This record gives sequence, structure tokens and C-alpha cells, in this order.
Amino acid sequence: MKVAYQGEPGAYSEEAGYGYFDAPEMVPQESFDDVFAVVASGECHSGLIPIENSLAGSVYQNYDLLLRHELYIVGEYFLPVRHCLIGFPDVKLSRIKHVISHPQALGQCAEYLRELGVKIEPVYDTAGSVKILKSSGERTTAAIASKQAAEIYEMQILQENIEDNPENFTRFLEIKSKPVKSDSKSKTSIVFTLNNQPGALFKALSVFALRDIDLTKIESRPLTGKPWEYLFYVDFTCTEGKDSAQRALDHLGEYALMLRVLGTYPRFEA
Amino acid sequence: MKVAYQGEPGAYSEEAGYGYFDAPEMVPQESFDDVFAVVASGECHSGLIPIENSLAGSVYQNYDLLLRHELYIVGEYFLPVRHCLIGFPDVKLSRIKHVISHPQALGQCAEYLRELGVKIEPVYDTAGSVKILKSSGERTTAAIASKQAAEIYEMQILQENIEDNPENFTRFLEIKSKPVKSDSKSKTSIVFTLNNQPGALFKALSVFALRDIDLTKIESRPLTGKPWEYLFYVDFTCTEGKDSAQRALDHLGEYALMLRVLGTYPRFEA
Repeated sequence: MKVAYQGEPGAYSEEAGYGYFDAPEMVPQESFDDVFAVVASGECHSGLIPIENSLAGSVYQNYDLLLRHELYIVGEYFLPVRHCLIGFPDVKLSRIKHVISHPQALGQCAEYLRELGVKIEPVYDTAGSVKILKSSGERTTAAIASKQAAEIYEMQILQENIEDNPENFTRFLEIKSKPVKSDSKSKTSIVFTLNNQPGALFKALSVFALRDIDLTKIESRPLTGKPWEYLFYVDFTCTEGKDSAQRALDHLGEYALMLRVLGTYPRFEA
Repeated sequence: MKVAYQGEPGAYSEEAGYGYFDAPEMVPQESFDDVFAVVASGECHSGLIPIENSLAGSVYQNYDLLLRHELYIVGEYFLPVRHCLIGFPDVKLSRIKHVISHPQALGQCAEYLRELGVKIEPVYDTAGSVKILKSSGERTTAAIASKQAAEIYEMQILQENIEDNPENFTRFLEIKSKPVKSDSKSKTSIVFTLNNQPGALFKALSVFALRDIDLTKIESRPLTGKPWEYLFYVDFTCTEGKDSAQRALDHLGEYALMLRVLGTYPRFEA
């Protein structure tokens, strides 16, 4: 079972993979584009991508990639995220002037970093920021990543649990080249576009509201080439079973200009 | 008239300021936090912040800062954005291996950069990326910024208009410590939270749909400390005049857990 993830060993996506899959072979990729590409080519069985964090918000790039590729969402996983500030061995916290990490991690620790009074600099990955730090030799710089990343690169944990709020979870999606069937306790992810007119979104949401279907997420992304028009990404759960969900989708299909089902998959339950 | 903006001289925010204001003194700031701070303190009369780009999407950090600060939106401006790939004088495009710029600019040129086959690296600012490039001396690296930034730092334009789509506009907001009054052809920006139950967003949007009020934007952001609950930011225009808009807001106020008006201001017309 080869599972592609973005980042370096020690990344949160890797940790999520070990929690979600049974004995996976986690295969690191440089970019999210690469994760989608190796799943599409069949080189990996699945990909595991972060889609949203409960403090920093959506990983917008992955919404855009879900639209560009013909892959399916087949599962979800919620990972509790605990960040560490990581520096060189024997460096004191008070000497730190710069902090590097992935923009999402910097966002999840924004208040902490503001109080620390340091300059922040985004890099491509959390675990990768520890790797960069180590090779730079800059002893007044620290990185934000997992405990495991500190161990892998033999660096010092200056402070643990530095996220602004303990309710810090990242939702991951498993993507595959074929869809799965999921009957009960499922979640469905869709993307659609509407005519740009007053009341359009209200009418679109009515297909769910009239059937007491619970929307768990709505995200808007720009529609390329049509300034100030949007793609809407919606996740919904349906306790009434798949018939009600299917009728809602048929109903929405009559009204939407474009509608694509990204996947119906088992809801994560801790 | 002192106007704060984020970035270095040559930034798109500076260009927007010269288009929007009559003879402003544009005052550069290192971060969006700093822009909000100098407007709140009275050090600058106004701030001009990018809120959304028609290709890359929202500037989420500024949505979060609008909520954290007690400032008001008093105007908007739409700037057409034309990006240039900028390198050292006499370097050929074929030699470029790395490209640096602000993540929003990298996002607006994502297809172009994918075809060029270069490694990308985010930095804090577009014009700033040219400054960084010049001081680094790395001749196989290029930056993405405005024509003006290339001129300021005396660097070479390798290619013009490299954005993925010509329909590339950035919407800017003017923020001030006091609100303005705007009667006709106005836009209103609000933020609200709802009870987390099926149909909640549908009911909230009904207050606009029932009055034929046009939503121009809806954005969701995570509610800190309540995983998978959201703040909703909505912009709407009201052709029926302010009475209809006020009744919609009163109606929403009855239903929303929290509702704040960020500002009512003249709509931008080109």
C-alpha cells in the first residue's frame, strides 16, 4: 500500500498516514501537484492531502487541484496537531530572532509568534523547515514542526504545544483514481458553479435545507477568467441515507451550471 | 493624506494607492498587521489592503485582521494586475531555474511557472522579491513583480504579462478608524456567526434573497476554538436603497449569534 504525501519525513501528513492507514508505505513528494500526479499515474495507490485546519483555514491549493484532476475523495481523517518550536541544541529561546515554517503552521501559531516578537519567514514544509534550519547553521533561527521532525534531524525542542488554541486539528482527504461506495454515515464533497444573479446561492442551498441535509463546509474559490464569479465547494452529511442525498444532487443538477461529485466516503469518527 | 500599505516601493498596493487616491503620500509597512496598527493609532489617515484577486482568491489574513481590529471599510478599488518575470540584466530566460515572489503572485502565474519547469519559493512581497533577488546576486533566479519594481531596482524584464489569465484584477479596501456614509450605489461588508445546525446558512441568506439583494462575495473562515464551525464574511450590493439593506441586516441580527457591519461604502466603478 503506497501512499503519497507532500513534505519531508516527519511531516504531519506522514503522521496522519500512520494513523489512518494500516501499515502504509508513506512516499514523500515535493509538492501537492506531485501527490496528485503519482496517484493519477498509478505509481501510488492513494494520496493523503491536508484540506483544512481548524485554526488556519482551508488549504486552497488542494481545492484547486481537486478540480483540475479527475481523482476521487475516498476517505477523511482528522489529526490533532501539536506544534514545537525547534532550534539548535544548546540555543536558548531568548536568542531566537527568526522563525521559519510552512505558512499554515505559522498561521496556527500567529499569536504566539507575535508575542515572541520574531520575524517570520514561510518555507515549503514544516518538517522541511527543520531540515533547512539544520543545513543553514543559523543559530538564532528556529523552525515550527512536529516532535518527530525534531528527533529525525536531532535538533532541540525549545517549546512544545505553541499553537494558539489547543483545538487544533487538520482534516486530511484520501484521494484515489477510482471512487468508493459508502452507504451509511457518509459524507459527500461536491463542486458547482451558478448563474451570477441575486438569490442564486440561496436557491442552490435550498436543495439541502429542504431535506434537512447538514452542510459541514462551504468554500468559495475564484472562477478563472470570470472576475468575481465563484466555484462553490460543499461538503454535506446525510443521516437519511443515500436516496435523500441523491435527490438533493439531482435537484441541484437542474439548477447549477456545472456540478461535479468529488466523492462520497465514510465520515471520520474518532 | 498619509496612506499605509504593505510591501516595498513598487508594490501593487502602492500602484493601487496612486490610482485610487488624489495625490496620496504612500507609506510602506512591513506587514498587514502594521498597516492596521498605524491606521488604528492615527499615524496614517487610511490603509489600503488587498482583499481578493480574481485568479488566486482571497487574502485570508486580511479577513482575519478586519475581525481583530475595530476599523471600518470606507471604499474599494479594482486594480488590473500585469506581472513581469524579472531577472539580472543580460541573463537569458532559458537560464532561470528558480522563481521567487509573494504566494499570491506565484498563484496567479501557476500555469506559466509549471510550463517553465522552475522551482518556486514564496517570499513576503512582490516588489520585495526583486529587492531580495538583487541583493542575493543569484543569476539563475528570477522574481515576479510589476514593471515599476523592475525599474526601481534597475533589473531586466525577461517576460511581460505572465499571469495565467488576462482577467487578473485585485480588489483593494480602504480602511479607516471611522465609518463613512454611503447612500446610493453602495456595497456593505459584514461578518457573522450562526448556530451550527442544518439549514442555518440557508436561513441566513434568505434575508438577502427575499429582498433581491445581490451577494457579491461569501467567504468562510474558521472560528477559533470551535473546530469545523465558521465565520461568514458577506459583501452585498443593494440597488433598492439603504432601507432594504437595513431591514435585511435587522432580520439577520435576529437570527445570527454574532453580526458586525465592517462598512458601507461606494461601489467601485471603472
